Amino acid sequence: MTIPTIKITEIVLTPIAFRDPPLLNSAGVHEPWALRTIVEVHTDAGISGLGETYGDLGHLERTRSVVSALIGLDVFALNEMHARVAASLGGKSGSDKHGLTGQLSVAGTVDRVYSPFEVACMDIQGKALGRPVHDLLGGAIRDSVPYSAYLFYKWDGHPGAEPDEWGEAIDPAGIVEQARKMITQYGFGSIKLKGGVFAPEQEVEAIRALREAFPDHPLRLDPNAAWSPGTSLKVAAELDGVLEYLEDPTPEIAGMAEVAASAPMPLATNMCVVAFEHLKPSVEVNAVQVILSDHHYWGGLQRSRQLGVICSTFGIGLSMHSNSHLGISLAAMTHLAAATPNLNYACDTHYPWNARDEVVEPGVLSFVDGAVPVPKTPGLGVSLDRDALARLAENYVKCGITSRDDTGYMQKFDPSYERKRPRW
Amino acid sequence: MTIPTIKITEIVLTPIAFRDPPLLNSAGVHEPWALRTIVEVHTDAGISGLGETYGDLGHLERTRSVVSALIGLDVFALNEMHARVAASLGGKSGSDKHGLTGQLSVAGTVDRVYSPFEVACMDIQGKALGRPVHDLLGGAIRDSVPYSAYLFYKWDGHPGAEPDEWGEAIDPAGIVEQARKMITQYGFGSIKLKGGVFAPEQEVEAIRALREAFPDHPLRLDPNAAWSPGTSLKVAAELDGVLEYLEDPTPEIAGMAEVAASAPMPLATNMCVVAFEHLKPSVEVNAVQVILSDHHYWGGLQRSRQLGVICSTFGIGLSMHSNSHLGISLAAMTHLAAATPNLNYACDTHYPWNARDEVVEPGVLSFVDGAVPVPKTPGLGVSLDRDALARLAENYVKCGITSRDDTGYMQKFDPSYERKRPRW
Ligand SMILES: [Mg+2]
Ligand SMILES: [Mg+2]
Repeated sequence: MTIPTIKITEIVLTPIAFRDPPLLNSAGVHEPWALRTIVEVHTDAGISGLGETYGDLGHLERTRSVVSALIGLDVFALNEMHARVAASLGGKSGSDKHGLTGQLSVAGTVDRVYSPFEVACMDIQGKALGRPVHDLLGGAIRDSVPYSAYLFYKWDGHPGAEPDEWGEAIDPAGIVEQARKMITQYGFGSIKLKGGVFAPEQEVEAIRALREAFPDHPLRLDPNAAWSPGTSLKVAAELDGVLEYLEDPTPEIAGMAEVAASAPMPLATNMCVVAFEHLKPSVEVNAVQVILSDHHYWGGLQRSRQLGVICSTFGIGLSMHSNSHLGISLAAMTHLAAATPNLNYACDTHYPWNARDEVVEPGVLSFVDGAVPVPKTPGLGVSLDRDALARLAENYVKCGITSRDDTGYMQKFDPSYERKRPRW
Repeated sequence: MTIPTIKITEIVLTPIAFRDPPLLNSAGVHEPWALRTIVEVHTDAGISGLGETYGDLGHLERTRSVVSALIGLDVFALNEMHARVAASLGGKSGSDKHGLTGQLSVAGTVDRVYSPFEVACMDIQGKALGRPVHDLLGGAIRDSVPYSAYLFYKWDGHPGAEPDEWGEAIDPAGIVEQARKMITQYGFGSIKLKGGVFAPEQEVEAIRALREAFPDHPLRLDPNAAWSPGTSLKVAAELDGVLEYLEDPTPEIAGMAEVAASAPMPLATNMCVVAFEHLKPSVEVNAVQVILSDHHYWGGLQRSRQLGVICSTFGIGLSMHSNSHLGISLAAMTHLAAATPNLNYACDTHYPWNARDEVVEPGVLSFVDGAVPVPKTPGLGVSLDRDALARLAENYVKCGITSRDDTGYMQKFDPSYERKRPRW
């Protein structure tokens, strides 16, 4: 049996927008539309693959700028693909407007741009070989991947619009109610609260309320660096024995190290260690005890798997981060998590917030007892719903948003709102 | 196109012995026979794969002990295979008799035992998919893999036997002559001298003689931890500007760190960082600046690739180590090296010393200008020469050696010989 080379003939990038509730965080509030880019890679073998990545204009433009350099490449030539992405970008780096990830490094930008192409090539490899993607990552060591209930403080609806199905959550009771609703619907066995919105005392109260309502659910709190090291340590002491980990209480590696030195629970991050070059400085000062991997910025599935090995090698726990996303990302996250032995925490996902605007055909991805059964069909196992894609692409054009800006959107309703980090 | 699961039905381990010249090192001298184990993995798809590993009895027995746990496994289920090897070994660890690698850790023992099975499964995957193994490692980023001329002090022949084709090399002139002969035959563009045999001054002289004879060849010296930190620093200062790296001058991470702090050239190791668990303590004290990877003990090809990512992440150089080996190992090393972007040094190989007893069919592996062209056929690209295998298996039974013992063999001829580390 011989499979000839499978060469990339065409790449189509489609920016899309899907509805997003007014979820609050330390930078402001989610706008009514979340952006993503759908990546389709076509080959001379007649096999196509899918990727999903950020939709912000800067990233979209950087991603577009490398496409021509990838035409003609074999879908197995991933080392070469990474090198070509780096060469095409020529030292460019990006920064976010929403302020949740900060200035990107040059190497981190390469990994972000490369990622959706790698995922699409893994999808194609799997389809060509008749193997699910997790088999190309060393094989699944779990049949389903647990995700966590990702709770947000939120308004009842976008200003001027009808309340959404989730309703308001601006205090501990509202958060507990949201948790009940989400856990009833999805069966999640772990809970994460996005904090950094209200004063730390209120968020501590919300965590205590969750603990009372869900005595056996592991709990996490993520204020997105809204606190000073001193405030972080106060909160950490108050929540001793309550949190499985405290995520990004304070900005930067140095601040996290200061908190980690005395906090009674592990600190996790998807903010201060977001590229391979951050690992060494972080390890040197033991800044974080858990890293939230994310194939969208760690350079795709294979490099995320390598991050997993680095974590186990350096005694760092491994969890998984999420941004607003749809089913291609969920499938990729699930294959990766299934094949990562040391992923010992339930993964984050925004999926419940965005699932109604799904872009893949239904029937493959589902939540059973809070976990997604690992697809067993070739490749990622998902295919595009073309009607949905067209609709979401139209949303993108109509909505007029080209870069996520949680702060600017908040300021529309509260002109005195300032982005401050740390705020408390 | 659908490929059904490919399940392991049978595994055959064949210990072999092949002729080895009297090569000197810091632990004694190579015996007339070097041992290896050939691993054949058969599957229900009718496709078989090859691995090559150590032949020492302890390792052979540990490797044998896990075989039954692997029967029935899909050749893509490598995460599961690693877990089963670990479970089967149940916390056992090994130690060497030759004293060149020391006591093995439990995790390091798992990676050693797992390695040849992983290589054989990668060979099978590649054959089933019609793809060379390097394509399953992200794709080759070089067409041929440079190796170094691996020079040894040596006797003219084993005591009581005829002089071998290489003749004596016990002084700088002999080493230069050996280098000329090997470079004429193979075309190597880098030179490594195995030291730790004579007093450091003489070995420094040999390096200077090589530099004079080969002004443009990068040079390395590897005394296998024969020197104290003080001696190492003296040698390092004398060879400032002459060596591309100094390999294992002194024992242990702490000693290497002491030398590294003042040595003018990078220090390399295949002795103090030989398993994933050694990376953290080594990084903490910057003990080594180059790690010699070796898929035989770093847990196969995929984990060796992950070691490569760790090295690039932590700013550590990457080279490749070799023991006495034959063509299955050479093929695996070449695929791995071809797909490892940050492997920036010529790889070590003992191949010239052992090539006359090759166990694979000729025609695939060759040295062109000191480099092995990367095989482009499915899998590893090599197949067993059954007659050679039978002959080498017979050697194993007849030679009576079951564990490498360079010191014991030396003591036969020099009863006063002591193993000492450091010796100088
Ligand atoms: Mg976070
Ligand atoms: Mg060495």
